[in-house]
Amino acid sequence: MNESDFKQLLKEKTACINDLIYGYLPEETGYFKKISEAVNYSVRAGGKRLRPMLILESYRLCGGSREEEEKRTAPFMAAMEFIHTYSLVHDDLPAMDNDLLRRGLPTTHAKFGEDFGILAGDALLNLAYEIMAEAVCKSEDDTAAKAMKVIAKKAGISGMVGGQCLDVELTGKPMSEEQLDFIFKLKTGALIEAAFMSGAILAGADSEKTEALGQAGFLTGMAFQIRDDILDMTGTEEEIGKPVNSDEKNNKTTYVTLYGLERAEDDVRNFSEKAENMIRATGDNEFLVELIRSMVSRKK
Amino acid sequence: MNESDFKQLLKEKTACINDLIYGYLPEETGYFKKISEAVNYSVRAGGKRLRPMLILESYRLCGGSREEEEKRTAPFMAAMEFIHTYSLVHDDLPAMDNDLLRRGLPTTHAKFGEDFGILAGDALLNLAYEIMAEAVCKSEDDTAAKAMKVIAKKAGISGMVGGQCLDVELTGKPMSEEQLDFIFKLKTGALIEAAFMSGAILAGADSEKTEALGQAGFLTGMAFQIRDDILDMTGTEEEIGKPVNSDEKNNKTTYVTLYGLERAEDDVRNFSEKAENMIRATGDNEFLVELIRSMVSRKK
Repeated sequence: MNESDFKQLLKEKTACINDLIYGYLPEETGYFKKISEAVNYSVRAGGKRLRPMLILESYRLCGGSREEEEKRTAPFMAAMEFIHTYSLVHDDLPAMDNDLLRRGLPTTHAKFGEDFGILAGDALLNLAYEIMAEAVCKSEDDTAAKAMKVIAKKAGISGMVGGQCLDVELTGKPMSEEQLDFIFKLKTGALIEAAFMSGAILAGADSEKTEALGQAGFLTGMAFQIRDDILDMTGTEEEIGKPVNSDEKNNKTTYVTLYGLERAEDDVRNFSEKAENMIRATGDNEFLVELIRSMVSRKK
Repeated sequence: MNESDFKQLLKEKTACINDLIYGYLPEETGYFKKISEAVNYSVRAGGKRLRPMLILESYRLCGGSREEEEKRTAPFMAAMEFIHTYSLVHDDLPAMDNDLLRRGLPTTHAKFGEDFGILAGDALLNLAYEIMAEAVCKSEDDTAAKAMKVIAKKAGISGMVGGQCLDVELTGKPMSEEQLDFIFKLKTGALIEAAFMSGAILAGADSEKTEALGQAGFLTGMAFQIRDDILDMTGTEEEIGKPVNSDEKNNKTTYVTLYGLERAEDDVRNFSEKAENMIRATGDNEFLVELIRSMVSRKK
């Protein structure tokens, strides 16, 4: 696949995902007006929709039924993006990273107030689970329940939240390699792992294949997060849509401050190549391979 | 049942529920130490465990299997209490009610910092769903999935979060009767409704019975919340374990400021009598009836 074909396809797929997940957003009506506006703003503010895309592409990689594809995957794609969005909204709060800009737009709390920043995050997290619970009730087999279980585990204390906690706890303090690895593994890796795994589960993949794809997701997440640290150090505000050197501003140890730029670049390459090989060993999905390449070599 | 028998029974049941829900708490170990401490502190800080108790008693009222009782109800009891706890932890944050004391103890953010107040709430909400998702995966019928769906709906934007949002939005502003009813219905009523309904669903009750008990729960929740407003106005700090007149301090319209103390007392009585009659029409559970009476006539 050449680069311009990939970019075109990526654009189309992102637009499809947007249509799909916006369908799960609440109506901005009556007494729900302000909270719905805050929730919808947070989700519509943009984003690459990588996690839902990974669910869908992992489902396809594992040969999931084409006929049932939307019914099976759509609720989980929306839920996954809402969980990701809630985590960003809460991360941006004054008591956390205290960021006023994300993707070039005011963050949710900057626009709707700190209280509604907290509440919009809470609403999004609940909404994600409500959508999955509904899908589990409608499902004729146990795949939806299993996918939900994986996502809940990877989103919570032993996943994303756990990673975020250590990250916050160690902000401004020197951090060991073990600590940084733990944070990367959980804060970013866990949800991408869950995306790969839930796509596989929904396609009916066995546990061996599901675990292998989880590992590929984990490696992708690591590479992705290292790239994020590299960009924070080398990008411009215009490129990355938020203030640069925000990590440095907050006195954070990053992959780059710990290992240096060269090693960081090497590891991105190594991790993503491993992920690619694991995906190729599972099945055929050229777009997914290209997607991972683009995720880890992105400029913003 | 005389008062001292009821009090003894309530004490024993509360202790049982504590044992049960503490079993679902995370270990305070390794890099998870601080967040687990914050989560466990929030849950162990006390509370009447009314919502899990209502699940259990509603299950019994509907004649749920005695043999499968713990297996069926325990995960939902823990999840419900964790959802309730997360909502309190986030409500207490500086950007929300800004309370430093709850039940006579420092609030979670007062003890662990504002960032960990936010994160402990997030962790608790995720944990609740993780526990329910696990229960759904283990369940041999569709009752667990249905119970989870009801709880998710009533916890989220069209339930507790929605009520909380309007409450926050209108703080310090005059509030209409319709607005206050909306807040009461959703902020407190929805979760108590969900407790009654999920207990019934787990017992295998039909939808008619489930709806009727939901209505009883809703009325109980209304009466309970009105009592809360009455106590904020008339109780002492020692009795209620937090600063009195906190509503007045925050310039909140309450049931008492809107309708007066007499009408508030009348409504508590009317709503709880209705709830009691609906419960008696469903089945026999004298403890549940006494529990509701104690909830709405409490002094703290």
